[in-house]
Amino acid sequence: MTTGGPPTVETIAERAGVSIASVSRVLNGHGARPETVRRVERAAAEVGYVANAVARSLKGGRTKQLTFAMQDIGNPVYVEMVRQIQTITKAQGYRLLLHSTDAVAEDELAVVRSLADRTSDGLILCPIRITPEHIEALRTAAQPVVVIGSLPDDAPVDSVRADSVTGAELAVRHLAGTGRRRIAFINGPADTVPGRNRRLGYRRALDACGLPADPLLTVTTEFTIEAGARSVEALLERDAAPGDGLDAVFCANDQLALGASQALHSRGLRIPEDVAVAGMDDTVLVRACWPPLTSVDLGSAERGRIAAEMLLERIAGQGPPVPPRVRTVTPRLVVRASSAPGASAPGGAADGEVTS
Amino acid sequence: MTTGGPPTVETIAERAGVSIASVSRVLNGHGARPETVRRVERAAAEVGYVANAVARSLKGGRTKQLTFAMQDIGNPVYVEMVRQIQTITKAQGYRLLLHSTDAVAEDELAVVRSLADRTSDGLILCPIRITPEHIEALRTAAQPVVVIGSLPDDAPVDSVRADSVTGAELAVRHLAGTGRRRIAFINGPADTVPGRNRRLGYRRALDACGLPADPLLTVTTEFTIEAGARSVEALLERDAAPGDGLDAVFCANDQLALGASQALHSRGLRIPEDVAVAGMDDTVLVRACWPPLTSVDLGSAERGRIAAEMLLERIAGQGPPVPPRVRTVTPRLVVRASSAPGASAPGGAADGEVTS
Repeated sequence: MTTGGPPTVETIAERAGVSIASVSRVLNGHGARPETVRRVERAAAEVGYVANAVARSLKGGRTKQLTFAMQDIGNPVYVEMVRQIQTITKAQGYRLLLHSTDAVAEDELAVVRSLADRTSDGLILCPIRITPEHIEALRTAAQPVVVIGSLPDDAPVDSVRADSVTGAELAVRHLAGTGRRRIAFINGPADTVPGRNRRLGYRRALDACGLPADPLLTVTTEFTIEAGARSVEALLERDAAPGDGLDAVFCANDQLALGASQALHSRGLRIPEDVAVAGMDDTVLVRACWPPLTSVDLGSAERGRIAAEMLLERIAGQGPPVPPRVRTVTPRLVVRASSAPGASAPGGAADGEVTS
Repeated sequence: MTTGGPPTVETIAERAGVSIASVSRVLNGHGARPETVRRVERAAAEVGYVANAVARSLKGGRTKQLTFAMQDIGNPVYVEMVRQIQTITKAQGYRLLLHSTDAVAEDELAVVRSLADRTSDGLILCPIRITPEHIEALRTAAQPVVVIGSLPDDAPVDSVRADSVTGAELAVRHLAGTGRRRIAFINGPADTVPGRNRRLGYRRALDACGLPADPLLTVTTEFTIEAGARSVEALLERDAAPGDGLDAVFCANDQLALGASQALHSRGLRIPEDVAVAGMDDTVLVRACWPPLTSVDLGSAERGRIAAEMLLERIAGQGPPVPPRVRTVTPRLVVRASSAPGASAPGGAADGEVTS
């Protein structure tokens, strides 16, 4: 452009040969006939007009969009988390954009870096691993970021984490408390934070209960229903007679526990009479299992709520800048029929004894 | 700005008092120190520089982002659909943004209209209802849109739909074929396209099998696990003795069927010996049910694949413009142990007889 001052809708309307109302409609996101949209866009580009979201952002305004990046849309642990985040952010007038990163580190990093595109005012990230690249990306993030997960102590952003070590310990202590002595453990990848923490909790509970840690009773696999079924098959293959070798299975999440229950049913083993089963995350899947699944509520909804509130506080930026905050949500054991015969009566799907 | 020509990174670097490299990092989304980001942003705003995504879009380029708007992230029917869409669009270099609209029409319309913000190159929308406002918004959409669902014949955009009428008919004919005569029907909201179509298929199958349509055997509710359980309780309350009044339950989706199975178990009724159960959508929940759930695969993965391909074709815009296309995916009945005792042997979770 060769004239002074920023381009206006009048400039664009004249150049595009359409009404100011049409330009306004297109630029304000209310749509228009495709041909009109094309002409307004071309004219806007020619005069260097900055479109809405990014324009507001560059002017110090807000896009009123927030991003939530989860690992796998297929993992029900995110359902209540997303609902909480969406409820809270929507109440503040924000639209929530969701990303499913397939737990690919490069995708997670790309989402963090894309904050510089100014199309989102902030990000809630659920990384499965924290690499040095993650820390660097978070340190240089162009917009506020809150991480749901465990970060190093010197991490540069707010985070809210579950206490899955204690959670796993609660579940295994409970199984031992019901008289189980051969408690198998189906874990997810051991090189992930969830995998490491669950294994630690399992070991601590065995030690506390004076039970030996039999390597033959532990299987490490992926966090899926199918992997849970395959793992039980593998565990039973290791036994002289099916069921002899184990009297309980603690699974690192509800999906694994669901697959484990399926495989036990298929082998004709009774839950919990022959083998007790417990999962983690207390997702909708606990009601999907029959008998209803004992699980550990790691507070996914509460973590979502806290993360959303932390992010909105950072965006509001009221008061003096505060250093990165770390919040930890306390786990709850919810005992159901899969580990407590008494709970399998009619209405057995209801929650049983709760331990924190 | 008072000089001719578009602002450059040099202009911004000089004004912000930072290096050209820093400006480049910030503007290209690679992040930088917060203070640097702030200064570059301010300078960019002052000189009217257009930031990345929108700049590319205004220049006729692409944001390389696509949007998928689903009704409820908690509905597993979307899991395979999203995975298919993400796989195909990612292979073309696009990032997929997800929206959970909670099936709120205003949210769906806002997503369509937000295409004019130029932060996404196209949209795949799963509306639960099609209102006149939907048609108008689609007609004036600023970017290509593909709808996964049933649209009026004169709708202005491409769409891919399931044949849930035939799907429901397949399931109910199967239940009748196993000798069931009192087939209850738990449906979702009757004023939705899915609700209407499933009811139509249920009625057609009853007529075809010479079974009376007993209004006492139909419950209309929400598409949730809890609603499925409540509905079975309600159906059983209507009977003289539990189970006397119905020998099968056809549920309008797998979530309802899962809740129904839970309630039947709680009442001490055996599946399928006392009451056969069938669901729809053939989601991961079929393996969550015990016994494994007979369900109708409405091709959610294939619908996702077709929608993604249609959208990418529209964006590429090769060849002469083609009129709106309508694709229909053929349903498949997958019989499992919940309606066929023979299938409940070890490995019962595996798929059984398949009918198209």
